[in-house]
Amino acid sequence: MKRKVKNSRKNKEFIEIYGFHTVKAALKNNNRKHQKLTITKSNKENLDNKLLHKLNEIIVLPIQQINKFHGSENNHQGIILKTSKLAQPSLEEIIFNTDQDKEIIVMLDHVCDPYNIGSIMRSCALFNCKSIVLAKNNSPEITSVIAKAASGALEIVNYVQVTNISRAIEKLKKNNFWAIGLDSNKNKFQYTFKIPRKCLLILGSEGAGLRNLTKKKCDEIQTIPMISNSKFGIESLNVSNACTIALYEHFILNNN
Amino acid sequence: MKRKVKNSRKNKEFIEIYGFHTVKAALKNNNRKHQKLTITKSNKENLDNKLLHKLNEIIVLPIQQINKFHGSENNHQGIILKTSKLAQPSLEEIIFNTDQDKEIIVMLDHVCDPYNIGSIMRSCALFNCKSIVLAKNNSPEITSVIAKAASGALEIVNYVQVTNISRAIEKLKKNNFWAIGLDSNKNKFQYTFKIPRKCLLILGSEGAGLRNLTKKKCDEIQTIPMISNSKFGIESLNVSNACTIALYEHFILNNN
Repeated sequence: MKRKVKNSRKNKEFIEIYGFHTVKAALKNNNRKHQKLTITKSNKENLDNKLLHKLNEIIVLPIQQINKFHGSENNHQGIILKTSKLAQPSLEEIIFNTDQDKEIIVMLDHVCDPYNIGSIMRSCALFNCKSIVLAKNNSPEITSVIAKAASGALEIVNYVQVTNISRAIEKLKKNNFWAIGLDSNKNKFQYTFKIPRKCLLILGSEGAGLRNLTKKKCDEIQTIPMISNSKFGIESLNVSNACTIALYEHFILNNN
Repeated sequence: MKRKVKNSRKNKEFIEIYGFHTVKAALKNNNRKHQKLTITKSNKENLDNKLLHKLNEIIVLPIQQINKFHGSENNHQGIILKTSKLAQPSLEEIIFNTDQDKEIIVMLDHVCDPYNIGSIMRSCALFNCKSIVLAKNNSPEITSVIAKAASGALEIVNYVQVTNISRAIEKLKKNNFWAIGLDSNKNKFQYTFKIPRKCLLILGSEGAGLRNLTKKKCDEIQTIPMISNSKFGIESLNVSNACTIALYEHFILNNN
């Protein structure tokens, strides 16, 4: 049963979001306040008029001009929206809103790469995971690159930065989440990979993996079955790919 | 049964590879000819002497100097290797070397993002897929960014660029590969996702998905089970994540 929680979202700051798909999703979100849209003529023609009416300032420019002001290397696709950041709920609020039996929350400890964070959020949206939790001191604020890689998922997946990861794990465990740490294990081939129905899925940085302190807090450490190559040191998946497999397994489990 | 094929690998051109892990893997590959290593003192101390002895030219520089010459935005981690590109086998050669019963080959049609291509190669290495096939006219040559994202997988996964995708599909089908096109289907929820033991897995570009011409050549179109969000247009996974799930399913099938 879900109870309503006082919404703590406040719009404080602004962010630049680019890419056709990502901007279109942001424009549809009524929780955002839009400041300015910079756009090419052809992109404007492909956007619904209803969405354009939400904007006070639209600047139509040739792609060369947009490149001049915003650089061409970030792949903005000729569409850039300055819009308010979404205020995020607290850990307590997301716990309050979880299903009693089946739910998955992703926790990222020391994962900093914005492409990976964004594409994890995209997988979350598609596999019914509503929140990712990160440590304030080792995760980035939401950036344009995260937004682009999330491809719209920013609008529906919570990005919850907590002060203390260990305490957050404890709190989620007390609320019936089974804490699975995902780690590579080059010395042992895993035959089984089982994600529980109510799961806190914890992933560490690509280089060092899960920190020992975080590992100790987990109920269980699991490894995705794979063949590692010790000669060339290929021993773990990209963190977004690893996370996506776990989210997929959880989704399949709860829909069969 | 595997038969030997005349190795068509020739070293023609050079490439710059960066990142500690990626360079270390390249240094271990005896099929490469190394030209020059630019490295910080601390990175050099962390590399095996045996690997360093393979090099004729080692330039030790402070990180600031390396940033000055190579830029800091590409995340080179203070280690850059100029080395020969690996010559790649032909489609005929990889077919010649496949297992009769179980094998997976990934085909990318119009996938251009180097991060995605690299991380797909990384997943291939870990899930026992030996080759990816791409169309010459719509795929990039192997770049430093692909190499970095592949994280060593370049050394063991073939990167086969063919002139004609349709003809390549035909040829693989004649050699008992079952051609699965992976596509999103926002209108229909899929409950099952089954990858055959001998599989050609075809993925299209993120934006447009599989081209109609390519779709028609497939034995079957499959969709990964997921919930798409039509309001915000979140309807498909990142291509590397989608590919990784299929590779994982194939790996699990063949190891259980």
